[in-house]
Amino acid sequence: MPVGTQGAVKATLHRDLGDAGAEIILGNTYHLFLRPGDDLIARRGGLHRFIGWSRPILTDSGGFQVFSLASRCVISDEGAQFQSHLDGARHVFTPEHTVDVQARLGSDIAMVFDQCVAYPATRDHAAEAMRRSVAWAARCRRRLLELQSEARPIEPTNPGQAQFGIVQGGAFVDLREESVDATVAIGFEGYAIGGLSVGEPIEVMYDIVARTAARLPAEQPRYLMGAGTPEDLVECVARGIDLFDCVLPTRNARNGQLFTSEGRLNIKNAKYAEDDRPVDPVCRCYTCVHHSRAYLRHLHMAGEMTGGALNTLHNLTFYLDTMRRIREAITFGTLDTFRQDFLRSVSRLSHDS
Amino acid sequence: MPVGTQGAVKATLHRDLGDAGAEIILGNTYHLFLRPGDDLIARRGGLHRFIGWSRPILTDSGGFQVFSLASRCVISDEGAQFQSHLDGARHVFTPEHTVDVQARLGSDIAMVFDQCVAYPATRDHAAEAMRRSVAWAARCRRRLLELQSEARPIEPTNPGQAQFGIVQGGAFVDLREESVDATVAIGFEGYAIGGLSVGEPIEVMYDIVARTAARLPAEQPRYLMGAGTPEDLVECVARGIDLFDCVLPTRNARNGQLFTSEGRLNIKNAKYAEDDRPVDPVCRCYTCVHHSRAYLRHLHMAGEMTGGALNTLHNLTFYLDTMRRIREAITFGTLDTFRQDFLRSVSRLSHDS
Repeated sequence: MPVGTQGAVKATLHRDLGDAGAEIILGNTYHLFLRPGDDLIARRGGLHRFIGWSRPILTDSGGFQVFSLASRCVISDEGAQFQSHLDGARHVFTPEHTVDVQARLGSDIAMVFDQCVAYPATRDHAAEAMRRSVAWAARCRRRLLELQSEARPIEPTNPGQAQFGIVQGGAFVDLREESVDATVAIGFEGYAIGGLSVGEPIEVMYDIVARTAARLPAEQPRYLMGAGTPEDLVECVARGIDLFDCVLPTRNARNGQLFTSEGRLNIKNAKYAEDDRPVDPVCRCYTCVHHSRAYLRHLHMAGEMTGGALNTLHNLTFYLDTMRRIREAITFGTLDTFRQDFLRSVSRLSHDS
Repeated sequence: MPVGTQGAVKATLHRDLGDAGAEIILGNTYHLFLRPGDDLIARRGGLHRFIGWSRPILTDSGGFQVFSLASRCVISDEGAQFQSHLDGARHVFTPEHTVDVQARLGSDIAMVFDQCVAYPATRDHAAEAMRRSVAWAARCRRRLLELQSEARPIEPTNPGQAQFGIVQGGAFVDLREESVDATVAIGFEGYAIGGLSVGEPIEVMYDIVARTAARLPAEQPRYLMGAGTPEDLVECVARGIDLFDCVLPTRNARNGQLFTSEGRLNIKNAKYAEDDRPVDPVCRCYTCVHHSRAYLRHLHMAGEMTGGALNTLHNLTFYLDTMRRIREAITFGTLDTFRQDFLRSVSRLSHDS
């Protein structure tokens, strides 16, 4: 899922997302709640109609941004108090409130409110946040069912909204297992693994993903939040993950880092100044079909936002194409071969180094 | 002509320019000379190939930017000494040099190097700059012919490059007439009117345009440089102008000002926060077909560059559509009626005021 933080995937038009193969995008509840506000979006008919995107949208619960972006965040069992990073205004997010906000946004998939801990965390801290997240997940589910009942206190924009639970537990396998069991016991349409890609070693992440995904219901979507690199996509699908969101392809594009079938390429590098080749010779995106590395480097150096747009188009195409190729390999039963080939060519090291 | 200062029309992809109906774009010689350099562009096969744009390109001579943007500019009969606004490096532009730079860029239409004066200017100053511009125009023409001869000192990227002369003379009708006669006597493929849209009252501009255009060869393109508003397009075509360039549609788009069939619209205005209508109900551009004023306002307030891209797409479509409608009216002999209708609806006052 390309990340459309404030109702737009940065530096793209929806048409370009469609061309790149995006089937679903992510919207950030925290940002949209603060600006332009979930009430305004509900009056516009919901997020799909407001932003003019007719395909699926997943919204996060806002929790991650409250903890990472807002100031003076105070967490209690009740919820989180915080101040807006925009104007300092005070707000409270409770599990019930984030369900209501997402119901007004009318996304297709809503996420439960959870507490993510940084890495490394003590076992006590990870356990406390995980158990609080389970309690919050139960309250979120209760609220969603209430909103889908006759006696609903507010009118959801999208009555068929699905809700995903989130597994926490830091880097502690037994806490992750406890979280899976308790979250699955509540019962959701899908399950996410949260609290990874927060600074832990890659082996720790892969191990937690493998053990957690294996314990989650295989017939329901398993979503790894906030990951990752192209290699992470392949490695984590191999460990049971179906769905990802990540700002890497879009954010790095604006900073000049391009993902290719031959590894990463930093377009700022002087060696591309006279390079007439496309970013990726095997890519068929608009950028690679029409423009050279030399031109993209020039746009980046000149600070032209068209450069960010072209880079974004390429990176999203590369990510979405990687997922398409993974699905194909699964269909043909060749995921292991694909994975080995992919990791050999798309090495972790930049081909600039 | 949309303005593609540094080899890109800001906030657009070339595809969008094509969709908006752009048949020719303008590149700024000063900017491209400084970065990435005309030598590099020539090695890439010229500006068209470097930027991936196959339709016509007009390049200015760099003069206007040297006088307005560079620092410590010193003008003599020989040319202009200046320091780059990027890194302070010293450069000299002579008429011959700007012809060479544009020959390396390989644009379809090159402009002569001229000296533009601010408004108001004394008669002496305007006369001096005009006569110097005539002398420079003669040197530019001589150099172009040299580059098109067997004994050419450098290899032009586009051997069939056309060259336009530029009429100067400030707000003094007789100086403008002297400039027209002397410039036409040199002989160019087309003629531009320079030194307007520099702060003079609109009536002065229209009057100078009318008198100057009437004296220029009617069978050759007449180009008004650096103008203007949608009303200026209609008014100046009525006075004999064929070709325009202006940053207004693109720059104002990024600042949230939208041009519509009902006048100007400032998307920042709070009254658009819940306005589900398109920017312009009669416009068929991508932005108007897919998005509401409410969404565009949100993107602008949230600082999302997608907002600038969508606004730019609309404004360029409005400008190019206006030119298309003008051509149609000329074909049908209804320009006077069109002009009256257009000025009534697209009033000078914003419909926000």
